[in-house]
Amino acid sequence: MIAVLKQGTDEKRTEGLIAWFKGLGLDVHVSKGKYNTVLGLVGDTQKVDIELLEGLDIIESVKRISEPYKSANRKFHPMDSVIEITPDVKIGGGNFQIMAGPCSVESEAQIVDIAKRVKAAGATILRGGAFKPRTSPYAFQGLREEGVKLLETAKRETGLPIVTEIMSAGHLQYFENVDIIQVGARNMQNFDLLKELGKTDKPILLKRGLSATVKELLMSAEYIMAGGNNDVILCERGIRTYETVTRNTLDISAVPVLREQTHLPVIVDPSHAVGIARFVKPMALAAAAAGADGLMIEVHNDPPHALSDGAQSLTPEQFADTAAAVRRILSERDES
Amino acid sequence: MIAVLKQGTDEKRTEGLIAWFKGLGLDVHVSKGKYNTVLGLVGDTQKVDIELLEGLDIIESVKRISEPYKSANRKFHPMDSVIEITPDVKIGGGNFQIMAGPCSVESEAQIVDIAKRVKAAGATILRGGAFKPRTSPYAFQGLREEGVKLLETAKRETGLPIVTEIMSAGHLQYFENVDIIQVGARNMQNFDLLKELGKTDKPILLKRGLSATVKELLMSAEYIMAGGNNDVILCERGIRTYETVTRNTLDISAVPVLREQTHLPVIVDPSHAVGIARFVKPMALAAAAAGADGLMIEVHNDPPHALSDGAQSLTPEQFADTAAAVRRILSERDES
Amino acid sequence: MIAVLKQGTDEKRTEGLIAWFKGLGLDVHVSKGKYNTVLGLVGDTQKVDIELLEGLDIIESVKRISEPYKSANRKFHPMDSVIEITPDVKIGGGNFQIMAGPCSVESEAQIVDIAKRVKAAGATILRGGAFKPRTSPYAFQGLREEGVKLLETAKRETGLPIVTEIMSAGHLQYFENVDIIQVGARNMQNFDLLKELGKTDKPILLKRGLSATVKELLMSAEYIMAGGNNDVILCERGIRTYETVTRNTLDISAVPVLREQTHLPVIVDPSHAVGIARFVKPMALAAAAAGADGLMIEVHNDPPHALSDGAQSLTPEQFADTAAAVRRILSERDES
Amino acid sequence: MIAVLKQGTDEKRTEGLIAWFKGLGLDVHVSKGKYNTVLGLVGDTQKVDIELLEGLDIIESVKRISEPYKSANRKFHPMDSVIEITPDVKIGGGNFQIMAGPCSVESEAQIVDIAKRVKAAGATILRGGAFKPRTSPYAFQGLREEGVKLLETAKRETGLPIVTEIMSAGHLQYFENVDIIQVGARNMQNFDLLKELGKTDKPILLKRGLSATVKELLMSAEYIMAGGNNDVILCERGIRTYETVTRNTLDISAVPVLREQTHLPVIVDPSHAVGIARFVKPMALAAAAAGADGLMIEVHNDPPHALSDGAQSLTPEQFADTAAAVRRILSERDES
Repeated sequence: MIAVLKQGTDEKRTEGLIAWFKGLGLDVHVSKGKYNTVLGLVGDTQKVDIELLEGLDIIESVKRISEPYKSANRKFHPMDSVIEITPDVKIGGGNFQIMAGPCSVESEAQIVDIAKRVKAAGATILRGGAFKPRTSPYAFQGLREEGVKLLETAKRETGLPIVTEIMSAGHLQYFENVDIIQVGARNMQNFDLLKELGKTDKPILLKRGLSATVKELLMSAEYIMAGGNNDVILCERGIRTYETVTRNTLDISAVPVLREQTHLPVIVDPSHAVGIARFVKPMALAAAAAGADGLMIEVHNDPPHALSDGAQSLTPEQFADTAAAVRRILSERDES
Repeated sequence: MIAVLKQGTDEKRTEGLIAWFKGLGLDVHVSKGKYNTVLGLVGDTQKVDIELLEGLDIIESVKRISEPYKSANRKFHPMDSVIEITPDVKIGGGNFQIMAGPCSVESEAQIVDIAKRVKAAGATILRGGAFKPRTSPYAFQGLREEGVKLLETAKRETGLPIVTEIMSAGHLQYFENVDIIQVGARNMQNFDLLKELGKTDKPILLKRGLSATVKELLMSAEYIMAGGNNDVILCERGIRTYETVTRNTLDISAVPVLREQTHLPVIVDPSHAVGIARFVKPMALAAAAAGADGLMIEVHNDPPHALSDGAQSLTPEQFADTAAAVRRILSERDES
Repeated sequence: MIAVLKQGTDEKRTEGLIAWFKGLGLDVHVSKGKYNTVLGLVGDTQKVDIELLEGLDIIESVKRISEPYKSANRKFHPMDSVIEITPDVKIGGGNFQIMAGPCSVESEAQIVDIAKRVKAAGATILRGGAFKPRTSPYAFQGLREEGVKLLETAKRETGLPIVTEIMSAGHLQYFENVDIIQVGARNMQNFDLLKELGKTDKPILLKRGLSATVKELLMSAEYIMAGGNNDVILCERGIRTYETVTRNTLDISAVPVLREQTHLPVIVDPSHAVGIARFVKPMALAAAAAGADGLMIEVHNDPPHALSDGAQSLTPEQFADTAAAVRRILSERDES
Repeated sequence: MIAVLKQGTDEKRTEGLIAWFKGLGLDVHVSKGKYNTVLGLVGDTQKVDIELLEGLDIIESVKRISEPYKSANRKFHPMDSVIEITPDVKIGGGNFQIMAGPCSVESEAQIVDIAKRVKAAGATILRGGAFKPRTSPYAFQGLREEGVKLLETAKRETGLPIVTEIMSAGHLQYFENVDIIQVGARNMQNFDLLKELGKTDKPILLKRGLSATVKELLMSAEYIMAGGNNDVILCERGIRTYETVTRNTLDISAVPVLREQTHLPVIVDPSHAVGIARFVKPMALAAAAAGADGLMIEVHNDPPHALSDGAQSLTPEQFADTAAAVRRILSERDES
């Protein structure tokens, strides 16, 4: 960590600050320039509050050199993490998985039918919303625990592992037979929920918040890992920008950036990002080309009657076409 | 609600769509132009899923005319809501309140001392963080229930009502003697928490999310109100933009916009927005001038040693100067 | 165009507005709902000022149905435009081109050497900055006309057509032998420059502004085309968002969106977007997979000594590797 | 300037880099930490290319300590600049000016009438658009040189100095009798235009670009000042964010930030920022309360018939009310 003192800071206050840092167990290297004095802090700076420092009136600026995340940091775990969902389905380290299914689980017939069709088309994990975060309290809130049970039925019928979103730690009891627990973008910084998930032994799919930085996403992963659960899958799903022609702006550059900074698997959800079915395929191909470890794609048997997010769902036929094109891109990517 | 059909949509599919709308109990007015057919939908469009509609391949665009929020909507409640915090302290409808106190409660001596000093300087409500949402799992997480108890002590000593943040519905038991429960920016769309707060009878201070629109803020208020609790105070606290010279960008225009769209009181938190103590006063004055119903300002007895957010806290002396200047602006504003 | 009147607008003012629209030569369809009256305007609404309308106190909202751009609109020109740079080098309609070269032209030896190396590695057009837009007046401003001449030398030596940026219509005389004139992001809405370029017969490479919408990019293309020059190539080069881990956020979804809305070729510049050499390859692959018609990539013979933007330049070897991987992706994409 | 080397960088390459810095005439202070080596660079780092440095593969990060602007920097000119528009009208250093007038000059009768009315209501400078930057080539482009002449007529009739926008250096001949030349947001980084304006002796009103940072605005002012023209007035006019309820987001915090960083006067244009007439007054009051040196407000004699931007214009009566309220705020602010 580097702290730059303001021009003209007097000697005595500088000494006081240095003493304070030393009191925290840090080594302090002083570099006096013509205009500024710079303090280099070495040691366990993890718990130093950077905002507090920036608030001191003798400080010009503070910069953290080492990242404040540890468990998620590739520096300390150079190899890709490989997360085992089931003995047959792993993600990360060269294992690419496609999660597909409807935005909302609506009925047994619907979810079982879609599950069979996405499996036939190349999906390896079934997704479906049971507890639904909706902007409006008057909108359909999902079938909730009943929805999770229907997903379990579809799992029994097809053998596909299932992933579904949790909205409150109070619902954990319903997720016992769920293979991957999803944390949605709106809850990425619901720290109490993250802490509870850190105590479970289930893989967690953590979606990037609407205006979360890559670093904040990694810090939220760190919350889960700090509790002892290292099986975190990160998901880029579009960020909020000034551009409204797509629902969000899919930040595909986050894929190579995350893959450099962390050993955790990184997947992409193009459906929520663009919000328009006909742009899902090109963005799925782009994500695969950029190095993602997987995709999450919304598929519906009958888009116009979906209870939510119909606009962004593919038909099973469109999904099959997309999945096949993705596999072709992967075959080229892996040669590169 | 208005739905515009794509150019060249065939007659039969148009009829099918119209029939579907009618099945939902809506009146449909058809307006055929040279290039497009436009459907005007009249009736209870509140529950129609706009995203689903936009997903239909025959739809060019959909626009909601009436807002999807009802309880919070000024159209249906033209008078300002006045929320009674205590018999002596009301907010809204011309009642301006200043909430002040430290970012984190640290000890009894600290909170009681600050409480006395901010009261003397013109604060009417005491704020202080007990449960703290921190980006890093390794940062100080607050004194939690112990912190709430210390706030209660300060309340007994000074008579100031207290406001503090809740992070999980599971902690509601600790908030019995809290006068205003705060929902932080990161939990603005933690819908399960909002629903639980809708069942309480306490005033809720709802902070705008980092990248929440004004409309989303109102929809989150609607979640609380839909549960029966109408005492919601909205708080603008800065939004995330590309500009990094201040921590966030304080969107003061949200104040007159919100005051037009809703009857709920609107306050501003300049401390978190700018994150730099010396810019808090000008932004507090700007918020007051723009019509806010109150302010939330961080004050610390000894900023450099604060455990969190010291950078943005005022000293009690700076706060007294700011509060006095705000009162002068208010006296002019109210004449305007 | 659709105009929604405010609830409770009186009959007489509504009639006045309708008369005004009719005076503009528009047909007006009136649809009265329970809460709102909606006017559907049919005819040549291209020149109607949408902001003026939104300003009227009886107007709730206005929505344009048809896009305000005409020459660039795919609706009126369904086939891809194919722009001929030279008889051998075409772009668009399935013709994919890679533009490569240094950020700044520095010397004859440098540009000729790089030109030969990028040609050998698969580039088909040589790029190089002569007039340089720099944030600081004290930074290197490019070799200017001398730089253009050096590009011409490199063109003679290699046969590669050249593209370079113009910053002022006053410099057009120096661009006579340039094959593609580039308009940089900062000048995307320098309308006087666009108008002058509309009078030339050279292909124009128009870069998207830092915070320009897809629609604004198309309107700027329209400025050039309205002057008679239809040879416009659009370039996505990253937009400004809150995320700072990459220099800008490359909006790859703009590629399929633009390809749907316009017949003009769309290329991507991953170098400026991410600003970090090691992320250029994955983003180039992503752009190719998403359907781009070409790429613009910075290549330097010796990155550490570049006079500008060294951080984002590839070495010729890295470029050769990237170009080969892009070609493999293209071979799969074109089968899809 | 501080450069942090990557962990594990070998000694030899570090020595090479240090030698290179010394070759640039800089002093280098080396601070070796447990994980990283930090180089502190002292001397004239103004011309060092920070992006080039960041591109080196042995560099972790680079941070500039001193700002890259000099003429505009308050550090070197602690006193407020006072710019004399006319002998009677000064701006900065406690002199507050209100610029008012129509978005577009339409006719002699219109501009003379408005000029008289805004003067009577308290405006001290007349604004009016002659050369108009419009997103669409088909929209009204302004009366151009004829518009400037009409402004001159209004100036003769009322004695008000005039400010109007320039879009191209080629038009400078028409601005001889203009008192303040405005550079619009879209041309804030049209560096060739800025350089030409640096050679004139007229005050320049420089508007912040739609997604320009405070630092970039100062660098653009520096372009003008580097040419010898120190009379630059900065204008905050709203930035582009994800929020669409107002046209742009007025960044009022830029006022105190700019006033700290530069000695140049800072004004605010609430009309273009919010784009909605009824929010102009509260935002004008907020800007005044936050410490602005002036305001620019759109006023129209007959808003609904304006040829452009009617939505955001005040009537002369609304303007008079706003100006009076602003003066009351100023009287309180100046006591603070």
